[in-house]
Amino acid sequence: MDSPRSPRELVVSIDAMGGDNAPQAIIDGVAIAHVRHPKVKFLLHGDHARLQPALLGKPAVKNVAQVVHCDDTVGMEDKPSQALRRGRNTSMWRAIDSVRSKEAQVAVSAGNTGALMAMSMFQLRTIPGLSRPAIAAIWPTIRGQTVVLDVGANVDSDARQLVDFAILGEAFARIIFGIERPSVGLLNIGAEEVKGNDAVKAAAAALRAPGVSMRFHGFVEGDDISAGTVDVVVTSGFTGNIALKTAEGTARLIGHYIRSAMSRSLFSRIGYLLAKPGFGILRQKMDPRVANGGVFLGLNGTIVKSHGGTDGIGFANAIDLAVEMAQSDFPSQIADAMSHLPDSFAALGGPKAPTIDTGDAPSATEAVGTATQPAAE
Amino acid sequence: MDSPRSPRELVVSIDAMGGDNAPQAIIDGVAIAHVRHPKVKFLLHGDHARLQPALLGKPAVKNVAQVVHCDDTVGMEDKPSQALRRGRNTSMWRAIDSVRSKEAQVAVSAGNTGALMAMSMFQLRTIPGLSRPAIAAIWPTIRGQTVVLDVGANVDSDARQLVDFAILGEAFARIIFGIERPSVGLLNIGAEEVKGNDAVKAAAAALRAPGVSMRFHGFVEGDDISAGTVDVVVTSGFTGNIALKTAEGTARLIGHYIRSAMSRSLFSRIGYLLAKPGFGILRQKMDPRVANGGVFLGLNGTIVKSHGGTDGIGFANAIDLAVEMAQSDFPSQIADAMSHLPDSFAALGGPKAPTIDTGDAPSATEAVGTATQPAAE
Repeated sequence: MDSPRSPRELVVSIDAMGGDNAPQAIIDGVAIAHVRHPKVKFLLHGDHARLQPALLGKPAVKNVAQVVHCDDTVGMEDKPSQALRRGRNTSMWRAIDSVRSKEAQVAVSAGNTGALMAMSMFQLRTIPGLSRPAIAAIWPTIRGQTVVLDVGANVDSDARQLVDFAILGEAFARIIFGIERPSVGLLNIGAEEVKGNDAVKAAAAALRAPGVSMRFHGFVEGDDISAGTVDVVVTSGFTGNIALKTAEGTARLIGHYIRSAMSRSLFSRIGYLLAKPGFGILRQKMDPRVANGGVFLGLNGTIVKSHGGTDGIGFANAIDLAVEMAQSDFPSQIADAMSHLPDSFAALGGPKAPTIDTGDAPSATEAVGTATQPAAE
Repeated sequence: MDSPRSPRELVVSIDAMGGDNAPQAIIDGVAIAHVRHPKVKFLLHGDHARLQPALLGKPAVKNVAQVVHCDDTVGMEDKPSQALRRGRNTSMWRAIDSVRSKEAQVAVSAGNTGALMAMSMFQLRTIPGLSRPAIAAIWPTIRGQTVVLDVGANVDSDARQLVDFAILGEAFARIIFGIERPSVGLLNIGAEEVKGNDAVKAAAAALRAPGVSMRFHGFVEGDDISAGTVDVVVTSGFTGNIALKTAEGTARLIGHYIRSAMSRSLFSRIGYLLAKPGFGILRQKMDPRVANGGVFLGLNGTIVKSHGGTDGIGFANAIDLAVEMAQSDFPSQIADAMSHLPDSFAALGGPKAPTIDTGDAPSATEAVGTATQPAAE
């Protein structure tokens, strides 16, 4: 980076070694993002020797990006607990650390999700008063887009956590959709008030109580997500993750049907060629890169997780999301919400001790322990 | 019905008044099914005055179907507990009762799912040793079809229930796919052994134990359903129902994309016309009527639930499934499995007292109470 940073400039911290196609896809993504956001600066955490060749021929990127060397990398298959224990010198850790130290407003990584969440919780900690962070995904719908959370930060969620996710999701949707009062629905197996498990029923009761200013729609079902019935769909990490992957699998299955249907006769093949721009639009709509980026919400700092297998275009979209979050007043919106909790929310009990699914049972307890320690090294 | 029934003939009991398009769609479905299964006899439970006009011009159906009059009908919006309390003279109750009394081997209804499950549990009871019945759905995949259960009979499922669903799903897949040893996977948020909530982890441990003859694949994720990774996907009713509806919603979203992409230019429209047979195949693949029918497994008698909004073609497909189940040795397969439970299954504890989600909180307890009573009137 050529010039010293002014105190108010926007800096995005990048885990340049995370993801299946790192560092090339990451640097390509930064180059695309630089065109879209010429004033944004980047910190590229990673192996200097591997980043230099990727930066060759990209003088514009070099002007706004500073390579911060570190030796180590978190592997895509590494257990979160191991990454947490041994990962202080990894590009992922360093990328988050830049947010913790306020050198950057936001970090983006295409690396191992479990390790990224464990490190983010450890370094940034949960916002006071919130029980748990969540991962929010942006889901394409018939009406536009819907936020779904949690899609995998937590294994089980009680009523208080679901209510926290509703608070986080509402503020997130307000920022990214620019809607003053986003509608919020709780994912359930029936739209009737009396259905569902205890957690969703208690959360719904709290969100329906008088004095709650949120535009709570009530229960929604699985098919309401793609229908765009509400702006925010709240669910546990277990169900949200399975719903997200089920939708991805269904899209892949239908893509398979389309390909075999269009190649079965000469007429279909000619028809396919004529309708190709239409299929192009379809492909674009179904492109997982368009809505690339799960956002970790509820920590003292924002982390954006890109798909691990993304290319430069997808990574640039994840950076878009990061820039939008960094320019917003998300933290103060949440702090404000937490300091004015309605009685019905408070009645669900305070935040539980933070725990984290590190994908590694024996050391999960260890992660819990460490995540509650001060993040000083 | 013209001739007295021989003891071994196959009789399907039909709730002729259930579903959005009853009785016409039901009678149309029986007519189609009769062509496919000319030797099968039908008991048509419903209002004589409304069934007679629907049967006009269908002499072949009249020859194999007997109308059994009853005055009442379960509404699509009726609460299960109310239906259970006041529904003894409904077509739904009577259709199930024919299975209980062994006049028919199987019943098919397109009516209210919650009421159908509550009445089925009450009248047929859970197979001894099994903790809970489940609803199994047949899901189209890239490789063919996969059984997913439970898709909504239960709200929460503990490890023992998940193991029971695995036993039920394995036997079901053996029958409908004709595979000697179907592979079984547990739906989870990661394929690693250490991930997931306590119920799936304990169920996986039991299914992996030595002495278990089931071909247990381990954990699968949401996108493995449509990929056809395993023959049977086991999950709780809450997650299974949400996954199923999410997939339906995704298919609808993509259908919407296809229509708008194909109508955006003259070329796409011409291309669409040329490729129309291809789109026909695609529509057929995505037709919810093809795999119409959730099967209630784990009761002393088989009940097939058709989509409420189905037409005759869809209802005939549900009858196909019913006939296949009635011709099988499903009950003896399950009885055999229950009498030879491996130690690891027994260690999860015996069946809990049956409870049922009647979609009606105050009366759920009532349904529980009545469901454990003898089904004598």
